[in-house]
Amino acid sequence: MAEPRPSLYTSLSPALLHLYDLNNTVVVIIDVLRATSTIATALYNGAKCVIPVDSVSKCIELGKQIDGITAGERDGKIAEGLKYGNSPFEYPKEFINGKTLVLTTTNGTRLLHMALERGASQIVTGSFCNLNVVCNYLLSKNKNVILGCAAWKDKVNIEDLLFAGAVVHAIKNNFSINCDSSQIAETLFNNARKDLFGFMQEKNASHYNRLMGFGLEKDIRYCLTINNADVLPFYEDGKLIIHK
Amino acid sequence: MAEPRPSLYTSLSPALLHLYDLNNTVVVIIDVLRATSTIATALYNGAKCVIPVDSVSKCIELGKQIDGITAGERDGKIAEGLKYGNSPFEYPKEFINGKTLVLTTTNGTRLLHMALERGASQIVTGSFCNLNVVCNYLLSKNKNVILGCAAWKDKVNIEDLLFAGAVVHAIKNNFSINCDSSQIAETLFNNARKDLFGFMQEKNASHYNRLMGFGLEKDIRYCLTINNADVLPFYEDGKLIIHK
Repeated sequence: MAEPRPSLYTSLSPALLHLYDLNNTVVVIIDVLRATSTIATALYNGAKCVIPVDSVSKCIELGKQIDGITAGERDGKIAEGLKYGNSPFEYPKEFINGKTLVLTTTNGTRLLHMALERGASQIVTGSFCNLNVVCNYLLSKNKNVILGCAAWKDKVNIEDLLFAGAVVHAIKNNFSINCDSSQIAETLFNNARKDLFGFMQEKNASHYNRLMGFGLEKDIRYCLTINNADVLPFYEDGKLIIHK
Repeated sequence: MAEPRPSLYTSLSPALLHLYDLNNTVVVIIDVLRATSTIATALYNGAKCVIPVDSVSKCIELGKQIDGITAGERDGKIAEGLKYGNSPFEYPKEFINGKTLVLTTTNGTRLLHMALERGASQIVTGSFCNLNVVCNYLLSKNKNVILGCAAWKDKVNIEDLLFAGAVVHAIKNNFSINCDSSQIAETLFNNARKDLFGFMQEKNASHYNRLMGFGLEKDIRYCLTINNADVLPFYEDGKLIIHK
């Protein structure tokens, strides 16, 4: 008899994460605009590691202790007291190579800490920037998977669901999917895949509007591009490092 | 200057309802399979009123007091101690005309009580059975709207989202929609509208499977048919009655 396939679920919001069993499960943290895109980019460009922290004060304190780059946002803007923000363009190779990024964001880093507290076996971060490597990792592990959308202050958003849908679309044949949210995600992705940016614009996506209002069209376009920073951020001992 | 249009939001799960301001708002309770389909059908077939209660014990007690029909389900089956279930076919005119239905269900009646506690101005129930009359009511009120999906034990489901999407599709030009969940709902509905039953089947929808397992294909087909019980259940003084 064939081995039963592992399960795949999608959690649309941190406020729904408690509905899923995280034991013996790989959790993919998804915060497309922009935390998990920025994390992949910083590591791809040579950052030694990214340390996700859940408050601005911890970020400042730890940054001093280890001489790291303090970075993060609240409400889409650089948080007061931090030197850098949450844009992937702030972390080119010439700047970030060999350095440690200490990062705090409104949604993504918070969800990562929730997954940790709830006992996830492995935590990785996903974004369109590293879609391929995330899918390959999930296929190779052959373990249960939760795709965890960071959302916006617990409200479900389009872009994280689109990425979850892209993953479902790529790996569904190897998993048992009894999860309406995963089906919804894949349907959305199939509607959007030809032009992700155009879809966000057409659907008047709320965080698209927020970032466009800050003049960040370039960030949005980058974060919706596939595989431009194809490394796998893997959480280990309090840090995100590239998984080998 | 034109009057600003009222807002429309969709809450995908009872666990997300607290994110929305319910003051001065019409809340549509959506539990397509099967509570809100059954409520519309029972009223359409002449029930005096439907009294939604949140526990089986309250249902039994109240049923005795007022000589009402005690009905409801837990986990998709008739709840122990109750005489009738949550199928619209249990409430034809010859049976329900002039009677009071006391109903408790896993998700729908629970969400209704949450909306009440959180101060919704008006509460109505929606399902494909009464799509038109729900849309016409929302258009006539010109007030803020929350489409509240009952989901399944807080997990987002396809069928409630499909109905929310049908409403968004019908009335969106009269509302200001800055809500990704509403956009996701409409996209899903547009993918499914030609064959709602076929879509549920193709997507392996979890409650579709659960009810098919109980031999309830007929119920599912009925609940996905548009306007076959086109009355508006309106909550007033503890009861759902037909809104005139």
